[in-house]
Amino acid sequence: METKFQFAKELIYEAGRYIRDNMTHNLVIEEKSGFDDLVTDLDKAVQELMVKRIHSAYPEDHFFAEEDGLVSDIDDGSVWVLDPIDGTVNFIVQGCDFAVMIAYYENSVGQFGLIYDVMNDILYSGGGQFDVTANGKSLPSFHDRPLRRSLIGGNSAMCAQNVMGIADLGRRTLGIRGIGSAGLSICRVLEGRFIAYFSNIAPWDYAAGSIMGEKLGYIVLDLCGHKPDYKTRQMIMFVPQAKLKEIQKYIK
Amino acid sequence: METKFQFAKELIYEAGRYIRDNMTHNLVIEEKSGFDDLVTDLDKAVQELMVKRIHSAYPEDHFFAEEDGLVSDIDDGSVWVLDPIDGTVNFIVQGCDFAVMIAYYENSVGQFGLIYDVMNDILYSGGGQFDVTANGKSLPSFHDRPLRRSLIGGNSAMCAQNVMGIADLGRRTLGIRGIGSAGLSICRVLEGRFIAYFSNIAPWDYAAGSIMGEKLGYIVLDLCGHKPDYKTRQMIMFVPQAKLKEIQKYIK
Repeated sequence: METKFQFAKELIYEAGRYIRDNMTHNLVIEEKSGFDDLVTDLDKAVQELMVKRIHSAYPEDHFFAEEDGLVSDIDDGSVWVLDPIDGTVNFIVQGCDFAVMIAYYENSVGQFGLIYDVMNDILYSGGGQFDVTANGKSLPSFHDRPLRRSLIGGNSAMCAQNVMGIADLGRRTLGIRGIGSAGLSICRVLEGRFIAYFSNIAPWDYAAGSIMGEKLGYIVLDLCGHKPDYKTRQMIMFVPQAKLKEIQKYIK
Repeated sequence: METKFQFAKELIYEAGRYIRDNMTHNLVIEEKSGFDDLVTDLDKAVQELMVKRIHSAYPEDHFFAEEDGLVSDIDDGSVWVLDPIDGTVNFIVQGCDFAVMIAYYENSVGQFGLIYDVMNDILYSGGGQFDVTANGKSLPSFHDRPLRRSLIGGNSAMCAQNVMGIADLGRRTLGIRGIGSAGLSICRVLEGRFIAYFSNIAPWDYAAGSIMGEKLGYIVLDLCGHKPDYKTRQMIMFVPQAKLKEIQKYIK
């Protein structure tokens, strides 16, 4: 597993370099489900690069990835969950605040996760048998603190409609930050910057964070407090296990 | 004026260093108007440092600053508008995404503004007779693009209540980002990352950005489309002049 983890680290750095080297060309932008759900030719090229490299090294392994309908189940043997560019809108419009994500499962057990903040060159990785680190420095387990001295991560559309009661929870905290990348929001939780994160996201958005988070006292749950399905887009919370009951007073 | 601008740059770097050197000590946190309106001993110390340096160099000049009730009018001769730590909550909770801000006025005419992103070590400065730069690199004037291919900056509490129609405008764009610092949000507009920014803020929050923005085609206005009063906290928009009419269809 150590070899596979090292391979994944090298791969995610290569994907990041590829994005940085190619992000200034004229992106071909396509709309998926609507004008605000975008994909670029670079998302696809980066996923292709990752799939190709993994397939060469581990030809028996399966894929569950954001683009091109590569959707194996995570209990289908050895499965790589890939998000070539998490925060595609930020990537297109801001040129920052986006990430590459890799999660690796064996028979539905998460072995390691990686989230690479491409423009800040920070790699969050670990989980399973590996320490969770940011650029090699260990991240601490969750330390308790009051909601009223904490920030949460979410998105403005959910706040506008008080989805899941997130606006109610927000009023009990110092505020809600919306940075537009599930991966980087989850990293802020892992770093102790946000106390929790809430969004409507897909398995490739939360898989890597979920594997790392488990090691540090965090858990990914759906709206009803169940494990998410790892198949569809769902309302998700990424919260400290120790804070779950308190948060569930507001999040319903 | 060149000398004064250079002085301001050196001062803001000194303030940033002071914050970085002292931010790990046990902060003394006080509540101002409520549990979510915070100030620390470091906000006060940094302001004191800046006021002392300016007073030594320019003993006749006046101050309009966030802490300690230093509130000269901006038409009161030579006036320094100071925000020692913009984004105090981010500073306390996240240890990032905060800024130091300086604006300088002579008889109510903005001469230059500076916003220093302390943890990323990026200084945005200029306006008046000076080029607007980020770490010395010129920032371009506003270039037009459609709202549906743009992000806006705002805050989640305003979205939750659709204040000023910001949630309505948000639905016409690719989304709303909330980073929790007026200064850094304004910088994202100046960099072309957000197309506009909306918040309920005070003069020290928008003064520096307003001076820089004017040079690049942006304008600071209140809810009704008037120049803000430069005295009280107001609902403010920081928008491209060329986009004002289109934005005002939603922001009311």
